[in-house]
Amino acid sequence: MQQEVWEDVMIPKMSIKDMEAFVDEVFPQVMGTFHVLDIAPYRVKIRMRIRDDDLRPGGTVSGPAMFTAVDCAFYMATLAMIGPQALTVTTNCSIDFMRKPALGHLIAEARVLKLGKVLSVGDVMLYSEGMDEPVAHANLTYSIPKSR
Amino acid sequence: MQQEVWEDVMIPKMSIKDMEAFVDEVFPQVMGTFHVLDIAPYRVKIRMRIRDDDLRPGGTVSGPAMFTAVDCAFYMATLAMIGPQALTVTTNCSIDFMRKPALGHLIAEARVLKLGKVLSVGDVMLYSEGMDEPVAHANLTYSIPKSR
Amino acid sequence: MQQEVWEDVMIPKMSIKDMEAFVDEVFPQVMGTFHVLDIAPYRVKIRMRIRDDDLRPGGTVSGPAMFTAVDCAFYMATLAMIGPQALTVTTNCSIDFMRKPALGHLIAEARVLKLGKVLSVGDVMLYSEGMDEPVAHANLTYSIPKSR
Amino acid sequence: MQQEVWEDVMIPKMSIKDMEAFVDEVFPQVMGTFHVLDIAPYRVKIRMRIRDDDLRPGGTVSGPAMFTAVDCAFYMATLAMIGPQALTVTTNCSIDFMRKPALGHLIAEARVLKLGKVLSVGDVMLYSEGMDEPVAHANLTYSIPKSR
Repeated sequence: MQQEVWEDVMIPKMSIKDMEAFVDEVFPQVMGTFHVLDIAPYRVKIRMRIRDDDLRPGGTVSGPAMFTAVDCAFYMATLAMIGPQALTVTTNCSIDFMRKPALGHLIAEARVLKLGKVLSVGDVMLYSEGMDEPVAHANLTYSIPKSR
Repeated sequence: MQQEVWEDVMIPKMSIKDMEAFVDEVFPQVMGTFHVLDIAPYRVKIRMRIRDDDLRPGGTVSGPAMFTAVDCAFYMATLAMIGPQALTVTTNCSIDFMRKPALGHLIAEARVLKLGKVLSVGDVMLYSEGMDEPVAHANLTYSIPKSR
Repeated sequence: MQQEVWEDVMIPKMSIKDMEAFVDEVFPQVMGTFHVLDIAPYRVKIRMRIRDDDLRPGGTVSGPAMFTAVDCAFYMATLAMIGPQALTVTTNCSIDFMRKPALGHLIAEARVLKLGKVLSVGDVMLYSEGMDEPVAHANLTYSIPKSR
Repeated sequence: MQQEVWEDVMIPKMSIKDMEAFVDEVFPQVMGTFHVLDIAPYRVKIRMRIRDDDLRPGGTVSGPAMFTAVDCAFYMATLAMIGPQALTVTTNCSIDFMRKPALGHLIAEARVLKLGKVLSVGDVMLYSEGMDEPVAHANLTYSIPKSR
């Protein structure tokens, strides 16, 4: 709790175009899955395209697909502020599944609540595209690698 | 995730005065500790008075005191919508401690994200009075007793 | 916290063979991914086969694959005790990622710590096959549908 | 997830007597509350004495008292391995409340699952003294200050 805030990083260091190119490069296996809708200070909004493999009987989306959306959204929100450091990794994710998602794509809104030298802490609200009420909400902590 | 929403409970069932009287009655040992600042649909804002026992060396507030503020704020946010059901109990709390609190009272802003028949799910942002940045953020789930 | 324990369900209601057949039936898209190694009262141990899609650069396994292993292991640990109720769903998962997994299959050991009428609560320790120290640890809560 | 393990700290650096003296010194306001029952590698077991203030109507123990027991047990389990570094602080605690505690003292069993250079990660099982089944279970992460 004593970590200093990165006072100098108020302005995102990555644009939407930078972010999409970076994610496609480091995670080629999810190429084209994520579309960045907005980047603002300490905030990123993304859309995750759902594939057939992500669907579940009863016309819904799998838990792992929701986890993926939440995890990637917070990764991007952190990288937007610190720059493209691929080794930034999840240390904790606490996710509440609140409503059955609709059969469609996911929208994730991530916010960084505390950007320390070592840890980035925040949350993500997850929606089914076109629905008003969130389907899940998660708190995440990411570990930031030492700068060189 | 399949629980139905209580569509009919958009308007809080308890006023600020009701809530403070109820909390004093069921938790006499914390009498006067909590001051309800605002009640709105699915939202409650409270102020928790810090006592000497809650302080820690270095001029800060203890973790258990922060937990108490978070837990009570979400309890009140849930009761505001369902009415004074004392047996509503915490089933899960995941709390991120983000900044060292100042030596002073706490402000907690709770919101209910999903009010089901059995569970109430949401989060709380916790502040030191007078500081802009949150000191902690928590996700909570409460179990709602069966209506009679 | 006031829920009664299902005192009468000490003996698992599903065998390893039952469980594998049930999972293949309700989740055909993961057919053959999970191998149940052991079922004991309130305990299930599984092996999850990692596919090429689950790998990440640097010779490791993706976070969503680890989440899948954890979530499915606890689902099976709960169903083993209550019987094959497909509508049992995750309400919360808090996962700590502790070590980089090796390039190989995953072993998940789930235990149910509290089996109530409405909720099943417990945890899962996740290993890379052949490694001694856990790669992740998670607490989970599942919602159990009303019996008919 | 890439943090190296402190391979050299297999043997606890603090005895039961050291630990009790240290806690009394840095937290004088809880003097005499905690009794350390056992210290083993990566494990600590404590007993927390419940005071009148910790009781709740209906003959039970408050949530904040349970949080205190869990948090202090994991603090001691971490310090036992790294030595008396008072600035070690909680960054995350995810706690599941599973059963109503009895009217009596609490027993907490903490284990460190991952001791990195920056973070200590593990869990705590909490019991009412004399009861077999746990009343709560928590996952915790502590931040370890830089060595001098």
